[in-house]
Amino acid sequence: MEIITSTKAMQERAIELKKQGHSIGFTPTMGFLHEGHLKLVKHSSQQNDITVMSIFVNPLQFGPNEDFDAYPRDVERDKKLADNAGVSILFLPERSDMYPNEPSFEINVAKRTDVLCGRSRPGHFNGVATILIKLFNIIMPEKVYFGMKDAQQVAVVDSLIKDFNFPIHLIPVETEREEDGLARSSRNVYLSDEERNQAPHLYKGLQKGAEAIRNGEINPATVIHIVEEYIKTNTNGKIDYIELLSFPDLEALNKVHGKIIIALAVKFSKARLIDNIILETQS
Amino acid sequence: MEIITSTKAMQERAIELKKQGHSIGFTPTMGFLHEGHLKLVKHSSQQNDITVMSIFVNPLQFGPNEDFDAYPRDVERDKKLADNAGVSILFLPERSDMYPNEPSFEINVAKRTDVLCGRSRPGHFNGVATILIKLFNIIMPEKVYFGMKDAQQVAVVDSLIKDFNFPIHLIPVETEREEDGLARSSRNVYLSDEERNQAPHLYKGLQKGAEAIRNGEINPATVIHIVEEYIKTNTNGKIDYIELLSFPDLEALNKVHGKIIIALAVKFSKARLIDNIILETQS
Repeated sequence: MEIITSTKAMQERAIELKKQGHSIGFTPTMGFLHEGHLKLVKHSSQQNDITVMSIFVNPLQFGPNEDFDAYPRDVERDKKLADNAGVSILFLPERSDMYPNEPSFEINVAKRTDVLCGRSRPGHFNGVATILIKLFNIIMPEKVYFGMKDAQQVAVVDSLIKDFNFPIHLIPVETEREEDGLARSSRNVYLSDEERNQAPHLYKGLQKGAEAIRNGEINPATVIHIVEEYIKTNTNGKIDYIELLSFPDLEALNKVHGKIIIALAVKFSKARLIDNIILETQS
Repeated sequence: MEIITSTKAMQERAIELKKQGHSIGFTPTMGFLHEGHLKLVKHSSQQNDITVMSIFVNPLQFGPNEDFDAYPRDVERDKKLADNAGVSILFLPERSDMYPNEPSFEINVAKRTDVLCGRSRPGHFNGVATILIKLFNIIMPEKVYFGMKDAQQVAVVDSLIKDFNFPIHLIPVETEREEDGLARSSRNVYLSDEERNQAPHLYKGLQKGAEAIRNGEINPATVIHIVEEYIKTNTNGKIDYIELLSFPDLEALNKVHGKIIIALAVKFSKARLIDNIILETQS
């Protein structure tokens, strides 16, 4: 595995690889890799000659009261995991190289962001969009891989690629879960033992909602209530949101129909977890 | 000359050309071509295998009271001029193809825009940045060519490329002038005969300012006053602005030093003309 730390060297390498006719798959991460990331790498390796993974904890997508400084980092461990998973090039840029000056441009994501995590993380997706435009231009992939755990991010990347005509295919990859159903996340390490035991109930709650829909429930409020009651009964977590929306437009629905997402965020003592379930419904 | 009207076909063609190892030079225009545009094509043809010119009157960069509807258009004439000048591919996208939906993203250009034309055209450079990100992704040029007549646009493109890491070289091309010194512009056709006779004095005024600097003047206000008096004396145009700034940062100066620009905009009855002069000064 090749390790590149400078934006200039990475871009030159990508240009060279493309001139040689190699296809590039890319998965951007903030490091502290887990099975979810490695699954993205696996998909990319199967579909491209070269798989580039970036590790960059992007300050622009953290709010002033969020966990930028506390975000878990372990680059040496990440290097081994990435190498074993089949990453061809690990891109580890410095903050001073990615943002040498105060940015001249502000990106405002005006759609798909006033719901779910966007509501409680103002500016988050503006930071995500900014870093992705940069990374897409540096790495020039044909395909990019994002996990469906962050479904809102997938929706925003979908519109970023379409709105700005990036010559890139977005490949959403199903959420990787622990055996008990808990979605893999770098933030799971912050759960206490008790919280870790309760956390799988988030996904079980989503499944209860999906089951209600399959049994004929078409009122979004009723579905949300079912998920909410289940999670309140089975965890001590504080519910940040539970929402049912169209996907990927993330618009509110009067009636359950078409492709929909039920998504939630729940705060435990030191970690805020997110999860979701996507359903193709009839009528 | 190849003519392509769909964004998808243009992008596929660009990908194909790059796979074949061809270098692409690109000059974006709003059409109604004149010698200034053709000079950009000439430079591009000399430096690249393929020269792409786009013609697209971008609604996003016109303010509500500006001349979007009245902007001069003559596509048939443009096609002949572009072909004769050496354009390889003329890209003529439809508005409904460039902006199929209401954009999900707003770009705010936060630097280099509260001066010169940016001051009197709020949102103009936001629209320019948006269309350029799209065009750069569709055409994927190695080099882009912009005329120095719109020096502020050159400054904004410079930061757009750097901030977002576009793998593109910006080539600024000197302003093309009529024999009497008037900068070539699509808007010159709106000048009355009398105004057309006066218009060369804009550049002569800028030259008076430059001459004062070469003779030792270091006070920006004095230089501006010299240009202003000359233009007031020799034209009936209404001065929109005359400014002296650093280039390309476009910052105000207490003292004339380093690389500077003297730029102006003057309104005639039916046309607002811009021009500038750039100087490398000592001390």
